[in-house]
Amino acid sequence: MLPGVTLTTVDTECFEAALAEARKGLDAGGVPVGAALQRDGRLVAVGHNERVQRNDPIAHGEMACLRNAGRLTSYEGTTLYTTLSPCEMCTGAILLFGIRRLVVGEATTFAGDLNVFRERGVEVVLLEDARCKSLMAEFQERYPDVWAEDIGQAPPAEAERLI
Amino acid sequence: MLPGVTLTTVDTECFEAALAEARKGLDAGGVPVGAALQRDGRLVAVGHNERVQRNDPIAHGEMACLRNAGRLTSYEGTTLYTTLSPCEMCTGAILLFGIRRLVVGEATTFAGDLNVFRERGVEVVLLEDARCKSLMAEFQERYPDVWAEDIGQAPPAEAERLI
Repeated sequence: MLPGVTLTTVDTECFEAALAEARKGLDAGGVPVGAALQRDGRLVAVGHNERVQRNDPIAHGEMACLRNAGRLTSYEGTTLYTTLSPCEMCTGAILLFGIRRLVVGEATTFAGDLNVFRERGVEVVLLEDARCKSLMAEFQERYPDVWAEDIGQAPPAEAERLI
Repeated sequence: MLPGVTLTTVDTECFEAALAEARKGLDAGGVPVGAALQRDGRLVAVGHNERVQRNDPIAHGEMACLRNAGRLTSYEGTTLYTTLSPCEMCTGAILLFGIRRLVVGEATTFAGDLNVFRERGVEVVLLEDARCKSLMAEFQERYPDVWAEDIGQAPPAEAERLI
């Protein structure tokens, strides 16, 4: 974890729930990104990326978690935990629904744009958790094409051909 | 339709498919936003908002359409048709997946931010179709709370109380 970052017990429990979801994804042959939504100290929902498992390109970890939470009239007081820095789609969803606090496992294997959140007043806690990083690095190495597909990039072989 | 805008036969057919989806949503008591994805002159998928029907906050019309299209390794050559200007979440999804052309039914009842697309090189065709506008206006008037929820806003009664 990054120096200077301390998590509450609730944060730790919810973040571990998100990480467990990411591992569930990998075990099922999917993209290992997991998420959890917490409100008032209680876990509302968890979810993991299901692109491969459900043939669903919009089911990123954060999106699956928000879907599993169902309809909420407000996201006031919620924290979203995600093992990986959010992509542009998930960023849009988090901002649209007014989630004001985000705990991010790591932004090393995929940077995203955490400043967009800070500029919009969302509190960002970045952990740079070694377990999240190795989970994702292993996946990216083993399945580079699925990873490229998940973030809207050309497959590595094709990208090389285009250079 | 806005003066100066002309649609090809394919565009017209796909846009009408998106509008039919929006109507399907309204008939089922849902948010009347529909979408269609086209590639190389062929309709790939359609979808409509299913927040109410599936208790699914991420199932905006565009998202449902992208989900229904399933996994694609590339969105090159695709056009997305949507009856309403995209919200921040759908905007993020469209940009993430590299969809380069967008046909928008109307941006009057919900403006979104179509300039974000233009700045990123996405061609935007805005129709300001009267049928889309009246469908949405009717829904917003009849179900203001559901509409507020769908775009992450406080319900109108509460918003008034907060002034």
